[in-house]
Amino acid sequence: MHEIGVRSKDVYEMILPAVDMFEDGSDLVIILDMAGFEKESIKTRLSENFLTVSAKREKIEKDGMTYWEQRPLSIRKKIPLPVKVSVGEDEEIKAKYDNGVLTVRLPMKGVGKVTVE
Amino acid sequence: MHEIGVRSKDVYEMILPAVDMFEDGSDLVIILDMAGFEKESIKTRLSENFLTVSAKREKIEKDGMTYWEQRPLSIRKKIPLPVKVSVGEDEEIKAKYDNGVLTVRLPMKGVGKVTVE
Repeated sequence: MHEIGVRSKDVYEMILPAVDMFEDGSDLVIILDMAGFEKESIKTRLSENFLTVSAKREKIEKDGMTYWEQRPLSIRKKIPLPVKVSVGEDEEIKAKYDNGVLTVRLPMKGVGKVTVE
Repeated sequence: MHEIGVRSKDVYEMILPAVDMFEDGSDLVIILDMAGFEKESIKTRLSENFLTVSAKREKIEKDGMTYWEQRPLSIRKKIPLPVKVSVGEDEEIKAKYDNGVLTVRLPMKGVGKVTVE
């Protein structure tokens, strides 16, 4: 009955969150699946062309038996950006967190800004 | 710049969701992190002492470059229950889905039902 990995919280903390990243119009869009965090606990930071996202939550206190313990209590992902974005380093980034999904939109440098002389 | 695993949606579909399972009073509680699904797309089913949870979502249509594609479009997990629960097979199960987290509570068989004669 006992299955390998049922207490592998550390493994999940290492590989999560799952990330999608794509261009949408003149924005670089980064979507992260990170269910069950408080909005206030999520931190995003841009520096050296990396987007860093981190979040923490408290362990649920249980009085009974624990069988599986995989859900991450802490998430930290450093995502290399494939294009230059026009957001200053250490500038605040606007992100939306809804239904456990964090969406970050970063305007790409020089895209959609063609000057005709 | 190109990192191994940036398009590893299949891998994430295989290992997700992360699950916690523990006893709380007379209930067996199962918590699954599955961000960004429609409530209506989530199906739970109990049979042969297994809880099966599945969910699907549509792929986002993108017109620009895609760099990372890890977020699962489909989730299916069959969880062996370590204790007997007093829910009939194929009976409807009540679950709560909030902030991307699915919580299933199943009353354990014979727990909290002591008859004193």
